[in-house]
Amino acid sequence: MSAVFSKTVTEADILMFAAVSGDTNPVHIDQDFAASSMFKGRIAHGMLSASLLSTVFGTKLPGPGCIYLSQDLRFKAPVRLGETVVARATVTEIVQEKRRVKFTCECKVGDTVAIEGEATLMVNRRPN
Amino acid sequence: MSAVFSKTVTEADILMFAAVSGDTNPVHIDQDFAASSMFKGRIAHGMLSASLLSTVFGTKLPGPGCIYLSQDLRFKAPVRLGETVVARATVTEIVQEKRRVKFTCECKVGDTVAIEGEATLMVNRRPN
Amino acid sequence: MSAVFSKTVTEADILMFAAVSGDTNPVHIDQDFAASSMFKGRIAHGMLSASLLSTVFGTKLPGPGCIYLSQDLRFKAPVRLGETVVARATVTEIVQEKRRVKFTCECKVGDTVAIEGEATLMVNRRPN
Amino acid sequence: MSAVFSKTVTEADILMFAAVSGDTNPVHIDQDFAASSMFKGRIAHGMLSASLLSTVFGTKLPGPGCIYLSQDLRFKAPVRLGETVVARATVTEIVQEKRRVKFTCECKVGDTVAIEGEATLMVNRRPN
Repeated sequence: MSAVFSKTVTEADILMFAAVSGDTNPVHIDQDFAASSMFKGRIAHGMLSASLLSTVFGTKLPGPGCIYLSQDLRFKAPVRLGETVVARATVTEIVQEKRRVKFTCECKVGDTVAIEGEATLMVNRRPN
Repeated sequence: MSAVFSKTVTEADILMFAAVSGDTNPVHIDQDFAASSMFKGRIAHGMLSASLLSTVFGTKLPGPGCIYLSQDLRFKAPVRLGETVVARATVTEIVQEKRRVKFTCECKVGDTVAIEGEATLMVNRRPN
Repeated sequence: MSAVFSKTVTEADILMFAAVSGDTNPVHIDQDFAASSMFKGRIAHGMLSASLLSTVFGTKLPGPGCIYLSQDLRFKAPVRLGETVVARATVTEIVQEKRRVKFTCECKVGDTVAIEGEATLMVNRRPN
Repeated sequence: MSAVFSKTVTEADILMFAAVSGDTNPVHIDQDFAASSMFKGRIAHGMLSASLLSTVFGTKLPGPGCIYLSQDLRFKAPVRLGETVVARATVTEIVQEKRRVKFTCECKVGDTVAIEGEATLMVNRRPN
């Protein structure tokens, strides 16, 4: 069992993510600084791409009503403006008596893994 | 060594974070759904609060030019609209030959820990 | 066959919808003007609520890849800030040879119909 | 009698419209998906362009204080990022005793009609 959400990361995403998070690291918003960095250009916030995993969980699998317990993230490669991130979560274990589901997660751009990790979600009883 | 970034989470933050992430989980954007959930009202995206940790790293400690290697997150309590999240990162280990710094992290609302975790950053040589 | 999307309309939604559309009608953004209008207070843009129907089509039924052919809208009651709009689309006819699906649509706040209408969508062959 | 409002549709508009509407249909936000669709690239939400008609009514003709009664829309061609949409509404009938005004509407990009339709507005007595 696996689900996917994908999104192209744009200028506007970088701006709004900086606005919401306050993360004004120049590697994201300053082309001159970024060009002279090891990335040779601006990159998206790692947590922006990671947030697409939350989208998979909250809207697809397990879907609305689930509760985020943990998320481990390893950032493997940068995501650049204009690139399309495909976030995928795959069930690895279901702990029925605790209503917990464990996932492996990855965010890819083409064949490159940008982020890999694991997550645990609690699947809530339906609201009454 | 420790650094802090804090921010009040507002309606506009929720909306913009939903835009950037695509996470339209109704527990964030639908008051009626959220009121009937175990949270008894709308809550912020967990990854929104977690992103404030990225802000500490990217703007304060280690600061611009650092590279995010990993971030582990455990979500302990929800953050509600209007609450102020204080994100703090504290150095636990410096691995000099690899230019890596390890941190413990927490996001608190008042005395309540909303998120706790660990992170590893690489401190880059200054851009040349 | 029917699908639903619901969302609480907030200050931030009004602001961003005004930004994107350019619709700065004071009944939406000027409390003093709005209070003296027949609505006795600020109301959401009608097209904001109507857009939730597009969300049902584009994300749920028929879902991604569908093509919007037409949308008729009758605005029956205003939506106020803080109210939760439930947008529902129900299939009324499937024209198989033209791959068209017709829907009745409504946006409700509690038991009040804010918008009613009809829509026609084309269900595309899957991308190749 | 006719009035016009025009606006260039940008990345930021798409993102904010997705936020407000919740419409994360990949044809709008995922370049890879959109490139393989019949549109051969990302397109704006149809209701985003349609909302510019609301702007004509609410800010120009009939102007502030008018009440939106109905809007029929036929989507004829997609609008792409960076294109400028010219929304025009032209009076076709004035029903004086009911204070209603009927319009034909169109949204064009250059010479291409993206949307055509009709609308009925009620012209309110001035606020007292």
